[in-house]
Amino acid sequence: MRVLGVDPGLTRCGMGVVDGVAGRPLTMLGVGVVRTPADADIGHRLVAIERGMEEWLDAYRPELVAVERVFSQHNVRTVMGTAQASAVAMLCASRRGIPVALHTPSEVKAAVTGSGRADKAQVGAMVTRLLRLAAPPKPADAADALALAICHIWRAPAQNRLQQAVAAQHALKGRTT
Amino acid sequence: MRVLGVDPGLTRCGMGVVDGVAGRPLTMLGVGVVRTPADADIGHRLVAIERGMEEWLDAYRPELVAVERVFSQHNVRTVMGTAQASAVAMLCASRRGIPVALHTPSEVKAAVTGSGRADKAQVGAMVTRLLRLAAPPKPADAADALALAICHIWRAPAQNRLQQAVAAQHALKGRTT
Repeated sequence: MRVLGVDPGLTRCGMGVVDGVAGRPLTMLGVGVVRTPADADIGHRLVAIERGMEEWLDAYRPELVAVERVFSQHNVRTVMGTAQASAVAMLCASRRGIPVALHTPSEVKAAVTGSGRADKAQVGAMVTRLLRLAAPPKPADAADALALAICHIWRAPAQNRLQQAVAAQHALKGRTT
Repeated sequence: MRVLGVDPGLTRCGMGVVDGVAGRPLTMLGVGVVRTPADADIGHRLVAIERGMEEWLDAYRPELVAVERVFSQHNVRTVMGTAQASAVAMLCASRRGIPVALHTPSEVKAAVTGSGRADKAQVGAMVTRLLRLAAPPKPADAADALALAICHIWRAPAQNRLQQAVAAQHALKGRTT
């Protein structure tokens, strides 16, 4: 399974592509950041993120795009930009028929470090180890994007089992009513 | 000046096109709402909003798109959807080189009713009167989109004078340093 992880942001939008399945060693295919100038107007920044996202989708053809689920309890100004950048990432994927999965920051941290409250350094260290990299990817947004992709690959089997259980339950209900 | 006003939202995205200049009677060219199903996944809802926005831009060829500026002090879940829908509207406009202007809800209310704290009914009543309509546009999102376009047309001369003053000041500084 090939997953493009996206850590959304207007100034730095982290991108990371990981290939693998749960229970086997994972492979990093690409990592980087799409940047937009802070002094450009919001519309042009969103166009630049769209262009960057399209380039990543063209280059890696992921089967799924995992995006960080945005909450608004954080800094007001930042969260708006994050929500807008994530909208562009989800739009680009869905337009191509690529499924989108959302994971919360604590799900991602828990998946790669074992703790939902791990710090950036810990996430970076585990991403480096799990993908057998020479050094932690920089900036942190790039490492976070890889962590999102890893989180999805590892959580996917459990989510699929859950979906199958729900579907089976529905099918059963359908038969008895 | 032809302005497309957009009242962003995932469930109902209000669209209203107004033609005119400050100080003259205004003309409504079109009004409506782009709807997306609440049970669809977020990526597909954003694709539907993009498609709707493109149709409005194709049909009316506005010179400017006025979008409501989103704040996060409101309901957490709603504000995320609003930010994401507004991102798609701004992206579509900027991709075509159409300038985007943002106005806060209180600027819009003050422009059309004289009070920044006017309620929905008051905004609807004034939009109906200013555009000489037979009845208030429904739903409220459609009326709000028209109010945004009116607000922009009326504020634009003042904003242009301000921009010219700032530019003149910069030019002056450039000459003296």
